[in-house]
Amino acid sequence: MLKPNGNYGNLKDSYLFFGISKKVAAYQAEHPDMPVYRLGIGDVSRPLCDVVIKTLHEAVNDQADGATFRGYTPECGIPEFRKAVAGYYARRNVTLDPDEVFVSSGASDELGDILDLFDASSPALVTQPAYPAYVDASIIAGRKVNFLNAGPDNDFLPLPGEDTEADLIYLCSPNNPTGAVYNREQLQQWVDFANRRGAVILFDAAYEAFIEGDYPHSIFEIPSARTCAIEICSLSKTAGFTGTRLGYTVIPKELERDGMNLNAMWIRNRTTKTNGISYILQKAGIAVFTDEGLEQLQENIMVYKENARVIMKALDAAGIRYWGGKNAPYIWMACPDGMKSWDFFDLLLNKVQVIGTPGEGFGSCGEGFFRLSSFGDPEATKIAAERIRKIVTADK
Amino acid sequence: MLKPNGNYGNLKDSYLFFGISKKVAAYQAEHPDMPVYRLGIGDVSRPLCDVVIKTLHEAVNDQADGATFRGYTPECGIPEFRKAVAGYYARRNVTLDPDEVFVSSGASDELGDILDLFDASSPALVTQPAYPAYVDASIIAGRKVNFLNAGPDNDFLPLPGEDTEADLIYLCSPNNPTGAVYNREQLQQWVDFANRRGAVILFDAAYEAFIEGDYPHSIFEIPSARTCAIEICSLSKTAGFTGTRLGYTVIPKELERDGMNLNAMWIRNRTTKTNGISYILQKAGIAVFTDEGLEQLQENIMVYKENARVIMKALDAAGIRYWGGKNAPYIWMACPDGMKSWDFFDLLLNKVQVIGTPGEGFGSCGEGFFRLSSFGDPEATKIAAERIRKIVTADK
Repeated sequence: MLKPNGNYGNLKDSYLFFGISKKVAAYQAEHPDMPVYRLGIGDVSRPLCDVVIKTLHEAVNDQADGATFRGYTPECGIPEFRKAVAGYYARRNVTLDPDEVFVSSGASDELGDILDLFDASSPALVTQPAYPAYVDASIIAGRKVNFLNAGPDNDFLPLPGEDTEADLIYLCSPNNPTGAVYNREQLQQWVDFANRRGAVILFDAAYEAFIEGDYPHSIFEIPSARTCAIEICSLSKTAGFTGTRLGYTVIPKELERDGMNLNAMWIRNRTTKTNGISYILQKAGIAVFTDEGLEQLQENIMVYKENARVIMKALDAAGIRYWGGKNAPYIWMACPDGMKSWDFFDLLLNKVQVIGTPGEGFGSCGEGFFRLSSFGDPEATKIAAERIRKIVTADK
Repeated sequence: MLKPNGNYGNLKDSYLFFGISKKVAAYQAEHPDMPVYRLGIGDVSRPLCDVVIKTLHEAVNDQADGATFRGYTPECGIPEFRKAVAGYYARRNVTLDPDEVFVSSGASDELGDILDLFDASSPALVTQPAYPAYVDASIIAGRKVNFLNAGPDNDFLPLPGEDTEADLIYLCSPNNPTGAVYNREQLQQWVDFANRRGAVILFDAAYEAFIEGDYPHSIFEIPSARTCAIEICSLSKTAGFTGTRLGYTVIPKELERDGMNLNAMWIRNRTTKTNGISYILQKAGIAVFTDEGLEQLQENIMVYKENARVIMKALDAAGIRYWGGKNAPYIWMACPDGMKSWDFFDLLLNKVQVIGTPGEGFGSCGEGFFRLSSFGDPEATKIAAERIRKIVTADK
């Protein structure tokens, strides 16, 4: 008999966002006329910028005409797209060969697929609280997961110790869910640790476009990262592509383990397991990285940053401690009066119709914290922030 | 140290189509002014049909406006897309719950991803000649691959025997590369065998739209298939989406192994390892399955079918034996005079600038055969067919 993958049995019952959407759906079924205010899932709300829309229409027109029609695209990415991403990195003085850039359907897809490069016997290290898919994708692959806890003590920026057990290291900076950002010295510690141990860092840079201060946007701004890191990025938050879908992955040509070259392995993987990413979407991605595109997408990012300021102001007024919100689209707040995070979720949903994300969903050390997202509609965010302020203050 | 996935070391050197594209690029670099005629890779050449183009533009416009903007879509598919696919199956009297339909980026992506459902200890069975990714994706996963050889003796339609070792069975009908199509009785033999053994059939139905006669388009037209089969399909060949990318997968709710429900496992997999498929592309997929869409895409399929007739006529004139071409876009010809398939490839490329696909690339039992595709431009196909006829005749 065919044996199913028994690792699914080791997964916890329900995926965080799936669980939230069920609770919200149940609430809405019972209160069909009650508006809800979403500061929950990290989904964007602003439309795509003009140059991207224009390019999408042009690419669709290409598909309407035999003279310009495009069939299969190269599995690792259209050369112009790979060059455009390399050009984006060059703006920060990171030199990439376009052959080190791989197109993807998005960071979440890639974070699962990339595990194909590694033997399941090598344990993963996840700094918690963390995006739940890091853990779940590793469990599905049968990989042991070790945890390094983040908390107020280390400002949610844990660093490796000499005894840290880690072969495959997940780092996310700016962090989802905490909004914390590693500085250069801290990332250098991780890079040195990984090189010393022969570990590989999976660096999730999905939120880099929100950095304001002098923090690294890319792990490849750190010396020696080319021998120990893979960077996974997405246009979801940079350019509002959550529903459009496009991402990219950087695997340096120097990255080898046990005599095997990970860049060459990924070429082999992609040419075997995909037939490329949509021509239409890659054209839109190229438009994102033009001067015009990068300028236009700043308008949306500025709206989200203003949302973050509105939320932070409300939390300040309520005397609530929080992290993030400055170089990241997420605000990570302490639940009031030591409440548990799912209790606070229920309180906000049922009493003031605000949807946030319980910190416990990002790992046990997220218990007692709560994630608010700045991706909502500005008016809804103002209402939600005021409602949170009021209920937290009343609760005191 | 992080251990890389050593299974990559068990892969053969080069992927078939990658190898061909390198040979063609080298030829073109040496002969920049010489036109080449592509009957090679199964890539379509006709533009998308009008209703799909119209819908793509509309979906792009939705992304330009805050009132209609769509962020993340449901991981398993937009409900309307899942319903549209179920409606397509209903036309052939196959009843599916839309929850049994999963959207995908395309069949090749899904054929790799779906392996996540199974323990690597269960061996695969591949009927050869076969699409090389079946074998390579299994090897990357560390799965043993058994082969069942197809050939002129069984009209390239092998059937299981009582001693066939098979837990995960790849079937492709209409077949790539041979163009052979299983009839109902033959597929019933496979279904009965799989149910008896507890095996699971991965049924690749990517070419179903080319069936003319009374052959099953779907494994689910066969009684009892719901307890032993997963169907993987794509709009690449049905609607010309090779460069646009969209597909779907059917996993019946009855499909269980070892007490684990594969439909539920796939929901868990998708909600963990993806964030859904592009809204724009799913809207286009919905348009494909409307009456208007299905009627319009027939125009392109008729062009390809005429190409197939042109090629078959040339082979008839040259006295060459071949299979397929009637219910499939591929024609599988015997190489003339017992030539080896890569030698015949080189002969066609260098002497008459026609690109085909060497049968040996689909497995050792494909040696001595050659795949011609009907997806090319009609004029180019006429020229190529005539050139093949001439060189094969001159060669005699």
